[in-house]
Amino acid sequence: MCKINNLRIPGKALFLLGLILMMLILPVSAATVEENAEAITKNTEDIAGVQTALTVVWLILCGGIVFLMHAGFSLVEIGLTRVKNTTNILMKNFMTVCLGIVVYWVMGWAIMYGADYAGIIGIDQFFMSGVDNSIWTSWWFQMVFAATGATIVSGAMAERTSFKAYLIYTVLMVGLIYPVYGHWVWSGAGILTTGPIVDAIGVGYHDFAGSSVVHMIGGFSALAGVLLVGPRIGKFRSGKPVVIPGHSLPLAFLGTLILAFGWVGFNGGSTLNGNDPYIGLVIANTFLAAGAGAIMVLLITWMKTGKPDPSLTANGMLAGLVAITAPCGSVASWAAVVIGLIAGIIVYAGVMFNEYTLKLDDPVGAIAVHGYSGAWGILSVGIFAIGQGNGIFADAAYTAAGAGLLYGGTQQFMIQVVGLIMAIIWAFVISYVIFKIHDAVMAFREPEEDEIAGLDIKEHGMSAYPEFVLAE
Amino acid sequence: MCKINNLRIPGKALFLLGLILMMLILPVSAATVEENAEAITKNTEDIAGVQTALTVVWLILCGGIVFLMHAGFSLVEIGLTRVKNTTNILMKNFMTVCLGIVVYWVMGWAIMYGADYAGIIGIDQFFMSGVDNSIWTSWWFQMVFAATGATIVSGAMAERTSFKAYLIYTVLMVGLIYPVYGHWVWSGAGILTTGPIVDAIGVGYHDFAGSSVVHMIGGFSALAGVLLVGPRIGKFRSGKPVVIPGHSLPLAFLGTLILAFGWVGFNGGSTLNGNDPYIGLVIANTFLAAGAGAIMVLLITWMKTGKPDPSLTANGMLAGLVAITAPCGSVASWAAVVIGLIAGIIVYAGVMFNEYTLKLDDPVGAIAVHGYSGAWGILSVGIFAIGQGNGIFADAAYTAAGAGLLYGGTQQFMIQVVGLIMAIIWAFVISYVIFKIHDAVMAFREPEEDEIAGLDIKEHGMSAYPEFVLAE
Amino acid sequence: MCKINNLRIPGKALFLLGLILMMLILPVSAATVEENAEAITKNTEDIAGVQTALTVVWLILCGGIVFLMHAGFSLVEIGLTRVKNTTNILMKNFMTVCLGIVVYWVMGWAIMYGADYAGIIGIDQFFMSGVDNSIWTSWWFQMVFAATGATIVSGAMAERTSFKAYLIYTVLMVGLIYPVYGHWVWSGAGILTTGPIVDAIGVGYHDFAGSSVVHMIGGFSALAGVLLVGPRIGKFRSGKPVVIPGHSLPLAFLGTLILAFGWVGFNGGSTLNGNDPYIGLVIANTFLAAGAGAIMVLLITWMKTGKPDPSLTANGMLAGLVAITAPCGSVASWAAVVIGLIAGIIVYAGVMFNEYTLKLDDPVGAIAVHGYSGAWGILSVGIFAIGQGNGIFADAAYTAAGAGLLYGGTQQFMIQVVGLIMAIIWAFVISYVIFKIHDAVMAFREPEEDEIAGLDIKEHGMSAYPEFVLAE
Repeated sequence: MCKINNLRIPGKALFLLGLILMMLILPVSAATVEENAEAITKNTEDIAGVQTALTVVWLILCGGIVFLMHAGFSLVEIGLTRVKNTTNILMKNFMTVCLGIVVYWVMGWAIMYGADYAGIIGIDQFFMSGVDNSIWTSWWFQMVFAATGATIVSGAMAERTSFKAYLIYTVLMVGLIYPVYGHWVWSGAGILTTGPIVDAIGVGYHDFAGSSVVHMIGGFSALAGVLLVGPRIGKFRSGKPVVIPGHSLPLAFLGTLILAFGWVGFNGGSTLNGNDPYIGLVIANTFLAAGAGAIMVLLITWMKTGKPDPSLTANGMLAGLVAITAPCGSVASWAAVVIGLIAGIIVYAGVMFNEYTLKLDDPVGAIAVHGYSGAWGILSVGIFAIGQGNGIFADAAYTAAGAGLLYGGTQQFMIQVVGLIMAIIWAFVISYVIFKIHDAVMAFREPEEDEIAGLDIKEHGMSAYPEFVLAE
Repeated sequence: MCKINNLRIPGKALFLLGLILMMLILPVSAATVEENAEAITKNTEDIAGVQTALTVVWLILCGGIVFLMHAGFSLVEIGLTRVKNTTNILMKNFMTVCLGIVVYWVMGWAIMYGADYAGIIGIDQFFMSGVDNSIWTSWWFQMVFAATGATIVSGAMAERTSFKAYLIYTVLMVGLIYPVYGHWVWSGAGILTTGPIVDAIGVGYHDFAGSSVVHMIGGFSALAGVLLVGPRIGKFRSGKPVVIPGHSLPLAFLGTLILAFGWVGFNGGSTLNGNDPYIGLVIANTFLAAGAGAIMVLLITWMKTGKPDPSLTANGMLAGLVAITAPCGSVASWAAVVIGLIAGIIVYAGVMFNEYTLKLDDPVGAIAVHGYSGAWGILSVGIFAIGQGNGIFADAAYTAAGAGLLYGGTQQFMIQVVGLIMAIIWAFVISYVIFKIHDAVMAFREPEEDEIAGLDIKEHGMSAYPEFVLAE
Repeated sequence: MCKINNLRIPGKALFLLGLILMMLILPVSAATVEENAEAITKNTEDIAGVQTALTVVWLILCGGIVFLMHAGFSLVEIGLTRVKNTTNILMKNFMTVCLGIVVYWVMGWAIMYGADYAGIIGIDQFFMSGVDNSIWTSWWFQMVFAATGATIVSGAMAERTSFKAYLIYTVLMVGLIYPVYGHWVWSGAGILTTGPIVDAIGVGYHDFAGSSVVHMIGGFSALAGVLLVGPRIGKFRSGKPVVIPGHSLPLAFLGTLILAFGWVGFNGGSTLNGNDPYIGLVIANTFLAAGAGAIMVLLITWMKTGKPDPSLTANGMLAGLVAITAPCGSVASWAAVVIGLIAGIIVYAGVMFNEYTLKLDDPVGAIAVHGYSGAWGILSVGIFAIGQGNGIFADAAYTAAGAGLLYGGTQQFMIQVVGLIMAIIWAFVISYVIFKIHDAVMAFREPEEDEIAGLDIKEHGMSAYPEFVLAE
């Protein structure tokens, strides 16, 4: 057993890491005033200046709303899991944001939006060095997206994964896995929007607000993690999945509604322009898909079991939201309803497929909600996009360039398939490799006795509801 | 017993309905790009263009904040009811939003804002057909209001009403009851703001943000529902009301504060203009009434019982908010304080009157909070409105046209009485008829044994807090 | 025993107070329309007009987000305390907002922003008399800050303080203690930004969004309160502090994340200008410090005990946020990280110092989070400020005028020390005097048997979770 199980050692290691980080930036603290005099971009006193100011206000507020999604993710995850791991999950999700903020400042932004190298990766602006003040609003809006991928993984691996191992993975997710794929899609210089692949197919890949960049990356990383960490003790009996009910439906539903609210910022803000005349339809599409996804799952579970299932129905809304995230700026409102309805079918079928066929244990359904529905969202662009120059999004800067299959276009569908495959491969393979290495060095899964007792006492010495009597 | 009690049948019926809905819209999916080329309204590159953009940003964000109110309603309702019905209430409120979104897209908007027929009802734009992109922001802002009425009814009828019956009612509420009255008041072509009634009295009806359109319609529909469904088992003993305490005050208070936050969007957004110079006073009035309402109920309950009552005090804030919703764009700040204080008296007296005199069982006080306080809000416009052309709201486009009784005007008070009576009659009568028909076809009330056992297991097969030990 | 312990008497006294308040404002209600015709400030139809409108939208929404912080404070406080006092804490925090709104309208604004008398206090605009409509947006934004100070005190004195005594203190906090210090710092005419002290040192005191005005005033008032009210029964055994675990970590973490979201409005809105080009960096700094504070406490508690401590880690984020509140508009992003890391050390050391050395019982750590970290925030301006005319905030209207110690300046540091000492003395001394007088007239601390039984039943006759079985 060469694995490092003593918590004090990584604690000290992380503390040292912190000190090294401080030392790295201390030289900056000795800078003269002149050295700190970065370029100042002022708003001009004309129409363009006010437009810029409106965009800043829009993105700051949308970013704030997305930040609050971390509360939503946290509540959904604890609501759908057991009391004995609640403190642990709260801490994981909380530290995901805290680490996410700092790591995206240290390197996430640099790798995603720094000067491009070969369409693959950004290579400057580490520690946000050399940026002027006009960049910070973008940094804020991009940063709040970045930690989301790790949070998705957290949900799928809940109730049996080591806290410290998860934290290290989070740093890699926010600092490397997420921003590399993000660079390919959103940097403007990445291989999915410019260069040979795009030239061959004819149009660029389109993922408006992150069905792939955020949700598929999170969902397929989660798939790798779930495969490696294995199911919770008791999840499968004689090969059949057993329902392990969550401990608080009120928190799960509150979380779901906070997430839906968050999508106002997530999709709305992804217009990146407070003066965009199509924001209204982007938002309408977003919520039409959300409602349709939940309605579909309600009906399916009602038909299948005679009782509409609460947690699956909540996931139906999330699936609709994840799916519409890519196409919301490219499709008509009726298409948003259809995309949401199909997302509902996909998330239901996906959860069943994972549990019954793949025998995967994903306590919150994150792989189906974020991975599978995200993939559907990417494909749906290639099916339902109106195409630039046509219809209601005709001259929106961000709309998908090519028309979808329904409108006779094929190029957009083809590039969507390419981008989708690259997202799956990148997220799954790199996460699999990282988890494997990680597991070789430091146990990724908690010991059996700790899992049975619950991770709260083991990892944090504190139960989440110490005064309430629990059933055996 | 001809009532349909088998859940699987309505499940399948609803699913078929869903398929029919999809088929209705599938023809659209065959549309050519040209057919989808709706008119594009672009923001111009001048002052007016930026003003439009600011209004869009304002309404999208306000709409988002109002959307979050559904989390607030949900939390207040579960917080003030019992554990055994929590899952059911969560699902009802969740599906209210989900159905609300889709139904308001299918027909709610059309009936409310479609081309006017005789001042009574809108008759085009079903499925939002033919709208251009400038409409979607309005649709979003109006849609988030629409589901609120049904949510109010849900609270009053909680803990004993059939889930499927409630869902069907919700569709009718969002698709018909709410938008018809909304058409009368807010479409610009309705009988309460133009035509013979208005000509006879001299000024139009004024309901700034929905004391009647949203709250009275919800509250008096709830009154009809509560009368028909009857009190919960055990609520009255020998004719005297028994307190049935809610199971979670933290969630009830969190919900109340989320609702108050929601009113920033509800009343603030109802300026419908991000360039309005009076938004500040609209918001100040809103929160002054909120604070005053809570303070008044705190004092009343403290005096009456020696102990300030938590749930009534929370309802005092909501009553102040409901009351100020109509007059907040027409009165001075001192009047907002007075309106809030009186709303506090009304909600306290209303709850007592409902319980002791009418023997009604309204678990969350929704009839008093939304119905009675809403009515007070409508009347208060006729009493405290400064009148167009005077004082601080002098040239606000939306301020009540006539001066209130305190300023020597009588016309505004008269039309407010007319609109108030129409709201009560419309909401009460149509809801009563719908509930009656409904009850004849399909039991509206749950069977006694299910009500005693709690609706969670019966309707959804899942308890809300499966790990916690509950008192007998 | 001359203390008034009968709750009915203060109840009636407060009700009479309410009636007197209404009579005070009734004369206004007899005003003619002309008398109400306050000056109307319209937005002009030019660039300046749109800029003003954008600022209004920005401040209304930021104010709303800050309002929601009261939900956050409430959740953190109940989450970190025991079930038996939950109703009481909810009511205290709820009434803090409600009273805060009305009191800040009656007198808080007047004392803070009314016409200056000798740099010490404002002396007109009571009841907001004589203001025009351009003031209301400012009133809203300032009002939501005002009740925060009292809420901080509430947390520190939780679980043993009389409800009615707390309410009276809240009125004094919002109406007097907070606005007087606020006048010194933020009115533009106060002794800390103009006059002899400033002339002597050379630059004005800088507290961007309230590390001292809000947090230190709250934190050091809390210190006075905690000293006088004494520790909870059972907190110290043989002089050693005993851990009294909070009853709901999920609510504590949800509250923490809502508070962090609130800081988007708190610090962002404090630019007071929707057209400010530096909002992005203000927000980036805010969240970098938040993340850094949490990471530092995570590492410290991990190293010290082998287990990362959840509630202290959450307080680490809050400490980072409190500290960066003053300097966020004056420092570079690397400095924000350092300020946050040091705030993490301070809050950990502060909690230990309070418990082990001073033997203070502060159930939520409010003194360390708001008092000590706030003080660090004030000092950090004097250390890290770039100085007006330099670097990234070069011409921001609000940036600290002098350069910090690191850039060779000393004046800013000196004035920061002066303002910090004035905040401590003002908050501590006046609160101590008020609490002392108060305690002489009316018992501030609950009787022992009520404290042991819990305040919920005694004060409100209602437990917070009546259906759940609790451990003995």
